[in-house]
Amino acid sequence: MHSERFYTLSASCPDRVGIVARVSSFIAEHQGWILESRYHSDGDNGDSRYFMRLEIKAASLPFHLAEFRERFRPIAEELQMDWKISDSAVKKRVVIFVSKQEHCLYDLLARWQSKELDIEIPCIISNHDTFKGFVEWHGIPFHHVPVVADNKEAAYAEIHRLYEESKGETMVLARYMQIIPPAMCEAFPGQILNIHHSFLPSFVGAKPYHQAYQRGVKLIGATCHYVTSELDQGPIIEQDVIRIDHSDSVDDMVRYGKDIEKAVLARGLRYHLEDRVLVHGNKTVVFR
Amino acid sequence: MHSERFYTLSASCPDRVGIVARVSSFIAEHQGWILESRYHSDGDNGDSRYFMRLEIKAASLPFHLAEFRERFRPIAEELQMDWKISDSAVKKRVVIFVSKQEHCLYDLLARWQSKELDIEIPCIISNHDTFKGFVEWHGIPFHHVPVVADNKEAAYAEIHRLYEESKGETMVLARYMQIIPPAMCEAFPGQILNIHHSFLPSFVGAKPYHQAYQRGVKLIGATCHYVTSELDQGPIIEQDVIRIDHSDSVDDMVRYGKDIEKAVLARGLRYHLEDRVLVHGNKTVVFR
Amino acid sequence: MHSERFYTLSASCPDRVGIVARVSSFIAEHQGWILESRYHSDGDNGDSRYFMRLEIKAASLPFHLAEFRERFRPIAEELQMDWKISDSAVKKRVVIFVSKQEHCLYDLLARWQSKELDIEIPCIISNHDTFKGFVEWHGIPFHHVPVVADNKEAAYAEIHRLYEESKGETMVLARYMQIIPPAMCEAFPGQILNIHHSFLPSFVGAKPYHQAYQRGVKLIGATCHYVTSELDQGPIIEQDVIRIDHSDSVDDMVRYGKDIEKAVLARGLRYHLEDRVLVHGNKTVVFR
Amino acid sequence: MHSERFYTLSASCPDRVGIVARVSSFIAEHQGWILESRYHSDGDNGDSRYFMRLEIKAASLPFHLAEFRERFRPIAEELQMDWKISDSAVKKRVVIFVSKQEHCLYDLLARWQSKELDIEIPCIISNHDTFKGFVEWHGIPFHHVPVVADNKEAAYAEIHRLYEESKGETMVLARYMQIIPPAMCEAFPGQILNIHHSFLPSFVGAKPYHQAYQRGVKLIGATCHYVTSELDQGPIIEQDVIRIDHSDSVDDMVRYGKDIEKAVLARGLRYHLEDRVLVHGNKTVVFR
Repeated sequence: MHSERFYTLSASCPDRVGIVARVSSFIAEHQGWILESRYHSDGDNGDSRYFMRLEIKAASLPFHLAEFRERFRPIAEELQMDWKISDSAVKKRVVIFVSKQEHCLYDLLARWQSKELDIEIPCIISNHDTFKGFVEWHGIPFHHVPVVADNKEAAYAEIHRLYEESKGETMVLARYMQIIPPAMCEAFPGQILNIHHSFLPSFVGAKPYHQAYQRGVKLIGATCHYVTSELDQGPIIEQDVIRIDHSDSVDDMVRYGKDIEKAVLARGLRYHLEDRVLVHGNKTVVFR
Repeated sequence: MHSERFYTLSASCPDRVGIVARVSSFIAEHQGWILESRYHSDGDNGDSRYFMRLEIKAASLPFHLAEFRERFRPIAEELQMDWKISDSAVKKRVVIFVSKQEHCLYDLLARWQSKELDIEIPCIISNHDTFKGFVEWHGIPFHHVPVVADNKEAAYAEIHRLYEESKGETMVLARYMQIIPPAMCEAFPGQILNIHHSFLPSFVGAKPYHQAYQRGVKLIGATCHYVTSELDQGPIIEQDVIRIDHSDSVDDMVRYGKDIEKAVLARGLRYHLEDRVLVHGNKTVVFR
Repeated sequence: MHSERFYTLSASCPDRVGIVARVSSFIAEHQGWILESRYHSDGDNGDSRYFMRLEIKAASLPFHLAEFRERFRPIAEELQMDWKISDSAVKKRVVIFVSKQEHCLYDLLARWQSKELDIEIPCIISNHDTFKGFVEWHGIPFHHVPVVADNKEAAYAEIHRLYEESKGETMVLARYMQIIPPAMCEAFPGQILNIHHSFLPSFVGAKPYHQAYQRGVKLIGATCHYVTSELDQGPIIEQDVIRIDHSDSVDDMVRYGKDIEKAVLARGLRYHLEDRVLVHGNKTVVFR
Repeated sequence: MHSERFYTLSASCPDRVGIVARVSSFIAEHQGWILESRYHSDGDNGDSRYFMRLEIKAASLPFHLAEFRERFRPIAEELQMDWKISDSAVKKRVVIFVSKQEHCLYDLLARWQSKELDIEIPCIISNHDTFKGFVEWHGIPFHHVPVVADNKEAAYAEIHRLYEESKGETMVLARYMQIIPPAMCEAFPGQILNIHHSFLPSFVGAKPYHQAYQRGVKLIGATCHYVTSELDQGPIIEQDVIRIDHSDSVDDMVRYGKDIEKAVLARGLRYHLEDRVLVHGNKTVVFR
């Protein structure tokens, strides 16, 4: 991370000769100073896709983002790129979803307080009112949207409205214990991050720690992934594990797991917000 | 961890034949149900010391702690034991010390909120007033005790007074950026836990992340240890590390380090509070 | 590990009051010096099972194993114990099975050469002759027993014969790429260790690295487990993982995986040989 | 790693605008297909150095290495580069040094046998004859060069001669228990890799496991570094750690440590041989 302002260009396109040359020459022509750059070719050579991420010092360029976009567009079109560019001086808008567990919420707010996580949190949404006071003490609006068997459609319509009203760019499910309906997953692809409390693909579905206890595994884990309409099947961003042993009860595993969950969610979210994650089918390229 | 009430007996004594038999027979005579027990012999056989920790179901014994203590005393004397016994139903009293960094404080309070850390926090003491509002929102008294060059003696007298007044049993230096004076270290041996932001014994003293950056190490760490009058030399309770690489600046290392610091402090504190840590010279036996 | 000779008593029995007292008093009566002891109660209190492992200094007892067994038997019967006792001076007899991959074989033989793994290897069995010269150079008999579609019964009859003839006590499948038939699994329960090249229960069956690549996981692992008649479902002894990323091909994962496989197999085997592993249903208690 | 033949260009130069453009345009002009590329800017912007590593598909270029070198030279001179280019089809020549410990030697030879480590080992040199038979069984020449107090100069002259005669490009000290004299370190800068049995900079010098035991650390480690004339102070390439606890003796630590040592050495050596390690002062850039 750099203290000075920079632009982050992230892109993917069909692989061919000369991609790096084309992009880096464009930047060099305008005296752009590349602070960091990463490239990756994914797949077989016959049918591979090229991924890249560059950080360019903002002050080194003679123009701002709007003009960058306009000038770069012909190159992107020629290379058939999916691309975006963002400005480190513009904070991303992240809406956090919680239920009754505190660990991820406290962790994210601590990082936000210290500006380690330099984002806007326009609001926090919960199906319970447990953390209303805590969230509001931080000066962040809190919306209690109960989700029960017979109001799901209305509840998610309300959540959809709140997210758009607050100009959210990312939803973080910080141990939000409800299943996001497929329509919402499809409305916001690549915008919804979840933390799943197992080392996927082991123990999908409910009560993964109970499943892990039954199987007698020696490590438990957590997985940060994009939410898609297939439950627990979205592209994996980050994972980690912690050692347990025979003396650990399910409750102990839940406790250890919380430490892994919050760490993995924070790392995955950071990668996402810094445009380090590029999705390729059901997998991710993560330029850490 | 058990959900039912239990007593924790922790002890050390010179090693000899029959220690386990003596202690476990005493418990069995009174129908005491041992939930968990750990033993360790440390040192050479000629001059070794025996360490133990037992959890006994409270309801299985026909008497309470006071009578346990009285009845067990002759055995402990015979075996020349250093020993103590605690009751899981009695919360320990922990005073937290902070300065301006939020990560350990948020982490500890999240664990306290959810009763994962089932303690009393009679007060939080800081040399800054940064977290006054946050702490008081949690309903915990906050004491701002500035420590500057010419008031150190008075400041620590005040801290000493606050700690005793609040019946503190443990001090946790949660990134408290002041050196505890030797007199206070000696007044409360085995009661003061610190989190040091390096993998001791590497990089003692100030600015360990800068030292680590200069040396080009590939992992950085944190150490939870008891505070003694020798700076950064006390018995180590817990340590962990995280991988870094050439692309990480000192600021990145500080950021990664915070995650390790809070995790290591929380684990070390838990071991301490559950009487899992027995000090032997400048080392620890930790019955995890 | 101790340099002096010791006996290892490992046992499990229904949980009740006084087990530790009964066992440790028996040892103390005979002046037995307990070097190390571990206890664990597994399951709910109403229906829990007690596990233990003790190391007793051989020279401290006034009798040898045969008499220990005779004198201890009444206590074991009273407590309804499954138990065994072994002598550190008697090397265990381990038969290694390999196919064409070298990493686990080299690793085990290096440990055997240096006496880190202080065992007898009466023979090594393989379905290929790849390592014949290498094994024989070490002075260990090598048996090439091809296993093909139409000779499986005869092949395993031969393997069974070789194992019994060599007085084997443990079979180690060191990346042996054949499925052990159910009859053999049942003939030698708790004697056959396998290293599976995934973090079970993820990616059971064939080509786990290909499965992991397809799913886009961020860590891959290996699992050492007892072989039972249900493929990849036996009790897990040890597991570990290693980090990978988007730039790693299946071949890279195979290469990283080999490092984890050999490390996990060596640890699992050591726990098994030191009587640290007690099976409880489909899970293990591992007194590391 | 790619199965097809490729060239690896690694370079560093003073940082400025347009480096990537200059290099990638040169490659694109000749239809060179970049398989993988990594860039890093190290240091402050005012005085930073640029590092890069590219893999180019050999078959995509219309010329071979000699002509590449000639054509690229003017660009390298203009950019004031330190650079080299290697051919994946040409095996590097690695001389291994051992003493009496087997673990790193077995590990390296297993990797060499399976071509995971696709190198030439022209000879293995030792100050003992312990592994003469084992090495020669593998078809590798073994040189026993005793090093004792009064023959050091002659011994290292002989080693120097053997290394040059065998056209060695890298020396690997695989737990070679002798100190390389400064003159040899200076004759082969960046060519001598050592594995140190501690997590440097902790516990420099002799008997690091004894030092670690005395200090009561909870993790022990190993460090692969380039050897310079300052003992244990050379640029660090790779490090790792493993958890220990109070029950581990120095012997246990030695045993655990061996697993870390061989893994860290193998990783560090691989990075070195694949031209992934670029030295910057006393630190390394490692493009993993």
